Amino acid sequence: MINQISKLSGIGKRSAQRIAIELLENKEKIMIPLGQGLIESAETIKECEICGNFDDVSPCYICSDNKRDKSTICIVESVSDLWAMERGNIYRGQYHIIGGVLSAIEGVGPDDLNISSLLKRIENDEITEVILATNATLEGQTTAHYISKQIENKVSNITRLANGIPLGGELEYIDEGTLSTALASRKSMSG
Amino acid sequence: MINQISKLSGIGKRSAQRIAIELLENKEKIMIPLGQGLIESAETIKECEICGNFDDVSPCYICSDNKRDKSTICIVESVSDLWAMERGNIYRGQYHIIGGVLSAIEGVGPDDLNISSLLKRIENDEITEVILATNATLEGQTTAHYISKQIENKVSNITRLANGIPLGGELEYIDEGTLSTALASRKSMSG
Repeated sequence: MINQISKLSGIGKRSAQRIAIELLENKEKIMIPLGQGLIESAETIKECEICGNFDDVSPCYICSDNKRDKSTICIVESVSDLWAMERGNIYRGQYHIIGGVLSAIEGVGPDDLNISSLLKRIENDEITEVILATNATLEGQTTAHYISKQIENKVSNITRLANGIPLGGELEYIDEGTLSTALASRKSMSG
Repeated sequence: MINQISKLSGIGKRSAQRIAIELLENKEKIMIPLGQGLIESAETIKECEICGNFDDVSPCYICSDNKRDKSTICIVESVSDLWAMERGNIYRGQYHIIGGVLSAIEGVGPDDLNISSLLKRIENDEITEVILATNATLEGQTTAHYISKQIENKVSNITRLANGIPLGGELEYIDEGTLSTALASRKSMSG
């Protein structure tokens, strides 16, 4: 059991032992309910057939929400990125999870990502804007450019999240690339 | 001596003791040269009368560099922010260090900052752009807005650094405010 627990990300062998003891001391209260919860969730939670989000129904609660804008798709790398976007209630359109990034080193090509399903969505639905919200890492930006090339003749408006200084950021601690980008994309104060 | 050393930011009493022992063990090699260096620097380094930067001459090497653009002033809070901007060789204009931010809580008003000297520079020199590069903190942005109001009739182009996702940033770890800003200022991929 300790071996199983220590396979979870962020938990070392020492932590796993501590957790195991805590569980064994609270068999009825924590251990059994947790085991049952895990089995139950594994059975009920599935991937949304449209966007790739996790939910107990497919299409998921976002894809089936008629109050959300159907003409905009935001492309993210992973479910955790979708959740990050949803946390702030800042976006009211659709999502598409591509499930990773292109990477020559790790041997991830376009066929390993959910890109063909994206192209199908764009062809079938009336999509007026695609927002590329991959991470601001090298691989994320490469992937965004690849996708934008694939869809440039099919969608009128292809955008990406702005890069710059994060809110609360202090110049002294910000890398040169970000400072350079923030300077190059500086905005008018009167705008 | 340990008390004096431990007053430096980031150095606790324990570290100060360690440093003190290291110094005392290397009196000739490190301790005396350091002491002399400190006294010498204290005598030679002064504030630039124009921008507020530290240098051994005034005007400083930036203000007296004729290859730099004289028509643009970048406003920063502190010398360390100026150094951050200079690190990447991304900016070729002038600077003005205001020496802090407006803060009602800490009782810092406009008269406590180097704003009147900025207004004088703007009136005397031909300045076509002022870039407000205060930190992306609440106080930094408040200060930027205050300054932009003061100069809006005097400078045609008032800009601020772009806010958004820092380079290398992953959506999952970025705060909602920054994500929201990045979404609102999203850019066209074809641009």
